[in-house]
Amino acid sequence: MRFEVLTLFPEIIGAYCNVSIMKRARESAVFSVNTVNPRDFTLDKHKKVDDTPYGGGAGMVLMPQPYVDAYESLERIENSITVMLTPQGKPLTDAIVNNLAKYEQIVMLCGHYEGFDERIREIIKPVEISVGDFVLTGGELPALCLIDAVSRKIEGTLGKIESADYDTFSNGLIEYPQYTKPRVYRGLEVPEVLLNGNHKLIEEFRLEESLKRTKVKRPDLYEKYMNEVK
Amino acid sequence: MRFEVLTLFPEIIGAYCNVSIMKRARESAVFSVNTVNPRDFTLDKHKKVDDTPYGGGAGMVLMPQPYVDAYESLERIENSITVMLTPQGKPLTDAIVNNLAKYEQIVMLCGHYEGFDERIREIIKPVEISVGDFVLTGGELPALCLIDAVSRKIEGTLGKIESADYDTFSNGLIEYPQYTKPRVYRGLEVPEVLLNGNHKLIEEFRLEESLKRTKVKRPDLYEKYMNEVK
Repeated sequence: MRFEVLTLFPEIIGAYCNVSIMKRARESAVFSVNTVNPRDFTLDKHKKVDDTPYGGGAGMVLMPQPYVDAYESLERIENSITVMLTPQGKPLTDAIVNNLAKYEQIVMLCGHYEGFDERIREIIKPVEISVGDFVLTGGELPALCLIDAVSRKIEGTLGKIESADYDTFSNGLIEYPQYTKPRVYRGLEVPEVLLNGNHKLIEEFRLEESLKRTKVKRPDLYEKYMNEVK
Repeated sequence: MRFEVLTLFPEIIGAYCNVSIMKRARESAVFSVNTVNPRDFTLDKHKKVDDTPYGGGAGMVLMPQPYVDAYESLERIENSITVMLTPQGKPLTDAIVNNLAKYEQIVMLCGHYEGFDERIREIIKPVEISVGDFVLTGGELPALCLIDAVSRKIEGTLGKIESADYDTFSNGLIEYPQYTKPRVYRGLEVPEVLLNGNHKLIEEFRLEESLKRTKVKRPDLYEKYMNEVK
């Protein structure tokens, strides 16, 4: 998988991708992360990438020329998709993550300030994705969420690939409670059933707990799950 | 505002908070970001913070002692809230962001691997927040989303504070299209109405466009808005 990120702040992307699981995966060549800075494509000697909005209003708007030229400078491979990270987009879900993981190249456009000149959308025609109904300074954190979530689905990224399957959402439910050492901590004990090695009982306990907490914390997911089970 | 982040990867938090708008805001002392590493609180000579799950299964679970001790080491001020970043949490929205911005200290717990030992939840009793129905390697990106979104609401963070009010979601709708220079780019023109300086017409155009794209892209938000207007 090749992730390509158009961003005015490539150092944010670099910093994240150089730690933890991400670093290990990149070193094993399972995926690559490349950044392109629209500021390097300005035709202006001051390297200006934004200007005031037509019609007035606060903030600055990203000019079309540096973004479109930066985008067109990228080498595209066959199985490629372009994503714009913006609060206007479709909220990212595990299902979308699974879909994106099927591509071989994901190009991401990160906005900043008051957002993109509308003509960037008209020319590039990206899929628009959001990480939620809140506003961020830029598209870099959403891009990193997308890179992180998608790369988890690629074989070789997680220590044990199966791990991703037991995560919250992979079966549509919130994950069951997890316990590790010590067996008693500040008087709180690990549930007996997890200690006796009876795998059938453990599985039942975990499903029941998953259902219980999904019902309380996310009634929307619970209802969806129950309807699909029926 | 004091943001305190419990994380095994403090370098991720540092890297983000040292660029862009975040750096400017921190330098002007509008808010501070402090990290605490549970690894510094292990009683184990190998600085182990995780172990295998009781009952079996893939991955590693975060042990209670390093997290609880790290948490209790923090100086707490009066108007403080503790947030656990986890896919099990309530999805973050602009309304939750506005609520969080009223506190003077937000303590954030970032998970990793297969998640927290359940007793961490039982002892600390955090508010659980998610950035969406997808799974990430750790809670650091969600914590940064929260820091970024909340800090935008604090006076002094944005160049012009009013800017936050015109963002997507602040009125429950997706933002209208924005345009900046040049007036014509690759044959695509800025809409005439934005050039004539008639503020009433500009406002009407923008509201209409906001409604139009909200209806197409986010029918859920459109319906909510129309019901509230009635």
